[in-house]
Amino acid sequence: MSERRLKHWGWGYEDEQPSHADLTEAAALITGRLGFGSTEPERPVSLAEITLPAPRLSPPRALQEICRSDTYDRVLHAYGRSYRDIVRAFRGRFDHPPDVVAHPRDEDEVLAVLDWAVSAGAAVTPFGGGTSVVGGLSGPLGDRTGLVSIDLKALDRVLEVDPVSQSARIQAGATGPVLEDQLSEHGLTLRHFPQSFQFSTLGGWIATRAGGHFATVYTHIDDLVESVRALTPVGAWESRRLPGSGAGVSPDRMLLGSEGTLGVITEAWMRVRPRPTQRASAAVQFDDFATGADAVRMLSQSGLYPTNCRLIDPGEAEMTGAGDGSHALLVLGFESADHDVEPWMSRALECCSDHGGTWERRGSGGSGSGGDRNAAVGSWRDAFLRAPYLRDTLIAIGILSETFETAITWDRFEEFHQTVLERAGAAVREVCGAGSVTCRFTHVYPDGPAPYYTILAPAARGSELEQWAQIKQAASDAVIDCGGTITHHHAVGRDHRPWYDRQRPEAFAQALRAAKRAVDPSGALNPGVLIDP
Amino acid sequence: MSERRLKHWGWGYEDEQPSHADLTEAAALITGRLGFGSTEPERPVSLAEITLPAPRLSPPRALQEICRSDTYDRVLHAYGRSYRDIVRAFRGRFDHPPDVVAHPRDEDEVLAVLDWAVSAGAAVTPFGGGTSVVGGLSGPLGDRTGLVSIDLKALDRVLEVDPVSQSARIQAGATGPVLEDQLSEHGLTLRHFPQSFQFSTLGGWIATRAGGHFATVYTHIDDLVESVRALTPVGAWESRRLPGSGAGVSPDRMLLGSEGTLGVITEAWMRVRPRPTQRASAAVQFDDFATGADAVRMLSQSGLYPTNCRLIDPGEAEMTGAGDGSHALLVLGFESADHDVEPWMSRALECCSDHGGTWERRGSGGSGSGGDRNAAVGSWRDAFLRAPYLRDTLIAIGILSETFETAITWDRFEEFHQTVLERAGAAVREVCGAGSVTCRFTHVYPDGPAPYYTILAPAARGSELEQWAQIKQAASDAVIDCGGTITHHHAVGRDHRPWYDRQRPEAFAQALRAAKRAVDPSGALNPGVLIDP
Repeated sequence: MSERRLKHWGWGYEDEQPSHADLTEAAALITGRLGFGSTEPERPVSLAEITLPAPRLSPPRALQEICRSDTYDRVLHAYGRSYRDIVRAFRGRFDHPPDVVAHPRDEDEVLAVLDWAVSAGAAVTPFGGGTSVVGGLSGPLGDRTGLVSIDLKALDRVLEVDPVSQSARIQAGATGPVLEDQLSEHGLTLRHFPQSFQFSTLGGWIATRAGGHFATVYTHIDDLVESVRALTPVGAWESRRLPGSGAGVSPDRMLLGSEGTLGVITEAWMRVRPRPTQRASAAVQFDDFATGADAVRMLSQSGLYPTNCRLIDPGEAEMTGAGDGSHALLVLGFESADHDVEPWMSRALECCSDHGGTWERRGSGGSGSGGDRNAAVGSWRDAFLRAPYLRDTLIAIGILSETFETAITWDRFEEFHQTVLERAGAAVREVCGAGSVTCRFTHVYPDGPAPYYTILAPAARGSELEQWAQIKQAASDAVIDCGGTITHHHAVGRDHRPWYDRQRPEAFAQALRAAKRAVDPSGALNPGVLIDP
Repeated sequence: MSERRLKHWGWGYEDEQPSHADLTEAAALITGRLGFGSTEPERPVSLAEITLPAPRLSPPRALQEICRSDTYDRVLHAYGRSYRDIVRAFRGRFDHPPDVVAHPRDEDEVLAVLDWAVSAGAAVTPFGGGTSVVGGLSGPLGDRTGLVSIDLKALDRVLEVDPVSQSARIQAGATGPVLEDQLSEHGLTLRHFPQSFQFSTLGGWIATRAGGHFATVYTHIDDLVESVRALTPVGAWESRRLPGSGAGVSPDRMLLGSEGTLGVITEAWMRVRPRPTQRASAAVQFDDFATGADAVRMLSQSGLYPTNCRLIDPGEAEMTGAGDGSHALLVLGFESADHDVEPWMSRALECCSDHGGTWERRGSGGSGSGGDRNAAVGSWRDAFLRAPYLRDTLIAIGILSETFETAITWDRFEEFHQTVLERAGAAVREVCGAGSVTCRFTHVYPDGPAPYYTILAPAARGSELEQWAQIKQAASDAVIDCGGTITHHHAVGRDHRPWYDRQRPEAFAQALRAAKRAVDPSGALNPGVLIDP
């Protein structure tokens, strides 16, 4: 466990939070740029002011050393980091805090906690980084008598490295930086960089089918998994290390996306790779988002497989300081540990030119090494990394911020995008009186993009949750009505359940419910996520 | 349905079979090359000589038009095309023939047949091309009272083409040539070319996770599926068309590899692509298989993603007329509909040179357009396409031929390969007195290859099944003992069950059994495949 204490209500560590004076300064800047929000930051309810109901569970003596029920630990494990979670935590409201937080130090202790919790009639939530943005970590317990959160962060070791196969056996509780540090000793990297990278864990990525660094081909963590080991109430679920297999239904693919409902993932063999030595990147401007989307479609179908291929609409480019709002921006990149990527980039830029794109190069062999647009890419990347921190500030200054993401085939994209913008935008204006809905592509496929929408709007302090619920309803209805998926990589959790239930095939839902009952007969594991308790 | 009649016991059409004189000529050539086998071909038991037990089921009047119980149809649907199946059919032995073969003309009729069969207490086998090599099509029925084979080949239309997203909605009964013909009208291709391409169907490929054309990245049909529709006894299972999703456990990935046990796949949206316009290929010689494997490992980890990357060991190269037995042969190729693939090929050949590979080029921009090795590649490809036909001849002339395939990580490959060769080879010599075990890679991954083994040995006429069983046991034990998968793309069926049961995680097996019970409560669908009846 890290020595540094995490902030109890939002993103990051307690010792890296802005002062109230810093916040006031930021408030002036942000409200000036957006045209809404308060210049007087609100203060969160402090930890000392929070009173939780007494824990309903008491661990057996043998587990007391690794179990805690103090307010800080229960508060920290009560929520993920969705807008809704942070608003509630900010205001000191904790609806379903765990009764006990377990900190097992090895897999045997995970099993002991799981066995005890199940036999005690408690619900169990596997807890990685606590960065769920979909209500994945707590909710109504059904007939379970309490909640045990199993924090896996002590299981953070790279246990084995196989440099020949470029694979590594990694414990589920390792966060992005912790596992990358250990891999870098071997010159290897997983290169899975979700926005939550700093805090989220391998087990969480696998359980939620997280999306990462690669814009094409290896978009989800799914593609980097060689085998998984999980503990279920009826025994271990561990697949063989295999580069590929066709032996029936994939056992790994049933754990991927199970969101803690089938078992506690404890470790996985992951496909890693040497750190890239060759890079090329470019900032490409297009007249508008639709034209940029046409170019990206061509790129996605070219077989060039760019590492980075993020198309940002004019509004989002402006919002993040990466543009003046008059152009769409494509952040395009190739990387390799094997070969010069110049031929790849040259052809990709030809595709962009065919759609009126104009570009500035960065990195190896570029025609320009500086320029405004490189600064633009830098601005956008900085904004991407800062975003989770910024959101806490936005909440303090009365700005509602929400993101939702999806995927849709190219043939339906234009109409889909228009309708989602209209319906989400209308809800934002109706609920908040003003605000913006912007878009970028996080990942692209030959058959369609994964659009990611960001909402910023003036919040009515104290009514944020109602505002959020109305906007979420409108946006999610639009996504599902128009044929998209309720989530491309944020997961389902509890927040997306109503739309997930509309999206998934009913026969599949029956199969999944039965599969869960088979490995979790008492329904202890994360009740309400994916499947009703 | 095709007008041409399929051969009742082996591969291909009745009207394209060699005459007895042709067979005698071939026997002389083959036995001369191999050093074993009979120069006097045996004749198969003719259809007229076959007597099946009376059908135990009688379809209702409404279904009689599309149901048949004549001997030819029952025989044709009794087996797949494994060595074991063909030997039994050749000798007129039909252990578990279907009682009724249904030929639905649309999905409503599929549903009507399924409903009737389930309510009549019958078992149901979805039947595509009938090319299973793992006993996927019939076996003991448990408590079911008869077997209905649902032949889907009339559902062979490309129903919709979306050229923007490069996707097509295709019925499950379409064979390779039938769907490619329809796609080619749109300048598109699925490019899924398993060895069974001529007869196997889209639905069969999805149900068995078939491996295809692409040696890297898109190795299995899994990766080309955008959405699937299947009929289960409790209702339809149809996913949304999505380029990617992270909404819980993938519904498609639970149907992929379900081998007819969860539902009857009726159609799918598939990712297609323009026909390639740029190609480069090369025949690369290596001193031995191990050195070639090192080069292929480097290629698989390079990010170059060759379309073709088949490494053939010296023995198999010689056997197929693609070498003299002194070198391993790598068939290497790149293709694209977008760009010149020369930079890709150049770098790939550098990798080969680093391992002592010497090469001759074919196609665009090559340094040599003819040469012995191009002839070698041609020979090998011809042999690949002829192989299923040839096997019928081998059976007639008393030669046992069996293939098995697997996947293993690179770090274990060398020892794995040595052990598999030794143990399978020892079994071949013990059981048959002589024979060969050769190997090629069909697909390669950054973390390991998919080796494919071919056995040729003198058979004892009339005892082939016992010989096969002993050899299969030794080979499969070796594969599973040494950490491989019992199948990379041939599927599990009934033949691989003992080893599949050892391979799969027990908790997963419980989940899968429960999932099946949920959607197939009476256990009608393909009993004994993957899960016990």
